[in-house]
Amino acid sequence: MTTEQLPVRPAVATSTATEPPHVWYARTRSAVAASVREFVVERCGEHLAAPETAVLGRVIVEFAGGGKYLRSAFQLAGWLTVRPESPAAIRAAGSAELLHCFALLQDDVMDRSPLRRGLPAAHIAFADWHARQGLSGSSERFGEAAAILAADLCLVWAEQLLRESGVDRLALARGMRRYDVLRSELAVGQFRDLVNESRREPALSDVLAVARAKSGNYTVRRPLELGAELAGAGPDVLAALGRYGTAVGEAFQMRDDLLGVFGDPDATGKPVGDDIRARKATAVLVLAHQHADDPARRELRRLDARAELDAAQVARYVRIIEDTGTRPRVEQLIRQRVSAGIDALAGADLAPQAHAILVHLARSCADRVH
Amino acid sequence: MTTEQLPVRPAVATSTATEPPHVWYARTRSAVAASVREFVVERCGEHLAAPETAVLGRVIVEFAGGGKYLRSAFQLAGWLTVRPESPAAIRAAGSAELLHCFALLQDDVMDRSPLRRGLPAAHIAFADWHARQGLSGSSERFGEAAAILAADLCLVWAEQLLRESGVDRLALARGMRRYDVLRSELAVGQFRDLVNESRREPALSDVLAVARAKSGNYTVRRPLELGAELAGAGPDVLAALGRYGTAVGEAFQMRDDLLGVFGDPDATGKPVGDDIRARKATAVLVLAHQHADDPARRELRRLDARAELDAAQVARYVRIIEDTGTRPRVEQLIRQRVSAGIDALAGADLAPQAHAILVHLARSCADRVH
Repeated sequence: MTTEQLPVRPAVATSTATEPPHVWYARTRSAVAASVREFVVERCGEHLAAPETAVLGRVIVEFAGGGKYLRSAFQLAGWLTVRPESPAAIRAAGSAELLHCFALLQDDVMDRSPLRRGLPAAHIAFADWHARQGLSGSSERFGEAAAILAADLCLVWAEQLLRESGVDRLALARGMRRYDVLRSELAVGQFRDLVNESRREPALSDVLAVARAKSGNYTVRRPLELGAELAGAGPDVLAALGRYGTAVGEAFQMRDDLLGVFGDPDATGKPVGDDIRARKATAVLVLAHQHADDPARRELRRLDARAELDAAQVARYVRIIEDTGTRPRVEQLIRQRVSAGIDALAGADLAPQAHAILVHLARSCADRVH
Repeated sequence: MTTEQLPVRPAVATSTATEPPHVWYARTRSAVAASVREFVVERCGEHLAAPETAVLGRVIVEFAGGGKYLRSAFQLAGWLTVRPESPAAIRAAGSAELLHCFALLQDDVMDRSPLRRGLPAAHIAFADWHARQGLSGSSERFGEAAAILAADLCLVWAEQLLRESGVDRLALARGMRRYDVLRSELAVGQFRDLVNESRREPALSDVLAVARAKSGNYTVRRPLELGAELAGAGPDVLAALGRYGTAVGEAFQMRDDLLGVFGDPDATGKPVGDDIRARKATAVLVLAHQHADDPARRELRRLDARAELDAAQVARYVRIIEDTGTRPRVEQLIRQRVSAGIDALAGADLAPQAHAILVHLARSCADRVH
């Protein structure tokens, strides 16, 4: 009997064969969030009990509770392709969410993003705490350093949660190599993103390569493969999940790119035209430049050359992108990727529940509004 | 026969019973550095082969080759308390150096330090690369983000090197818990340091508590305990090493504090009065404030209140500290800690070579000039 078969947490409701995928997603999201919270609160008790450090724990607990929990859903779906749900699999999936917290906390510092999910980003929260405590020095610098340290804790704790999840040792030994690749790719992808953003007009192929390595692999493919590897999936299943993951990961990233330009700020929690102001090298912005006629392209370049864009200029930028026909073009690319992802599952020997969940998650990634 | 007993790397000269500790330190420093380099070069081949990412690898390889390699020496010394040297133990010790690279890379960004070991800090090197490539946007911001990502890679690779060192699985399972504590303490200690630096006059007890948790534990005690735990040391040995590590770690940190005020910039690779300009909450600065007479304390506070200090003001600050008698007072504290550390080893069942090395390392930590 391996550890993850032990009834460690009998209170968690487990799936039933007839549970529809959206019900599964909502139920497991709660279960994963609860296990992440329990683990982080334990770590806070161990390391952040002193009054002056408690704020670090508060920010991490709050941060880790939010978000879509997509990465843990993919990791758990990967597990379900060959094994039934278990408390250990739920905890191991929680690790993906802590890793995501690490990435977002750092990202927001690097991008100087003031908002995350419609609330002040962590570095802003830490800066506010510094000011409220009446501490000396720059609150902004303090906030950034504190957010980076909170990110460090999330990175270390993510791995600890995975290792202590209760998944058996042999499965872990198999999975850790993949986990290292995932984490290295994440940092390298972020670096390539920085380089692309510093180029005036990067090629679409470069942008898509980075999107694949960064968001795509990291959001969909790697967590899915990790879950399947932990559960002991064979090479055929892993290969099918790899193809699905690459395609659905690209669809996810392109939806992100559309939301970054056309998204509803109330739903995304980010200001209108955030990607435009940040000159992000996204598929939408690269395609818009490629398909703009000469006068439109000149205007985009003039806007790109400005240090700051006001609301009217952002609105004008969005309008030009609309006129290039980029939006339906990207919608079409997204639909193709979702179909390719679902097709990749055909013929693979997956548990029926996992198949249904993967089809659901592919569509959810592509159709989401935040 | 466990993995670490395999003659994986027969070319590495191994210790002899009569090898003096300083010869051991020089030899194992080279061996650990070679194994770190080999591991990092492999990772670069795996993740950083693309032309635009190669700079990340170059900076990490160069960074990882420098420094005193004290942490790996303590980890290896811990191992040697109960087991003979092995290639796996050398590689596992290299992990401590990669973790240290992570900490320094982040530290230099947070402190905005322009120099590290007398050369441009990594964030400056990345900023220069950004400018040389003719990329757009702020080179400074790029350099800071790139250094943080290089630090992430070092943190992930440190753990991977430990896990793949060849140390057997049961030993690793024992050691990883301690490794998690070490890494969490490092981030939390850094946060407490930030908070202390933001307080106008923190208490000596707070400063020493942070020094213990941060540099002391992280440089001496935790690597030593980790090495001993990986080798299978019993509770008596671990307890003795814990007492030694706490005392010697404090001596190490107080020497750092003295060097930060009185050190020779040619030896330390840092500008004169670096800690004074940064208003670091060190034992030296806190004691100087405590023992200054009223006029001297008022002058220190006036200098502390300035946004910038010129060379003459730094020299004046150093002179006031001298006059308070802080320097001999801290030298005395250092001597006491070294004696206490060496005394803590008495009675513990340590291999004679390890005992001799620990005595040597305690004195080296306390007497170093950089």
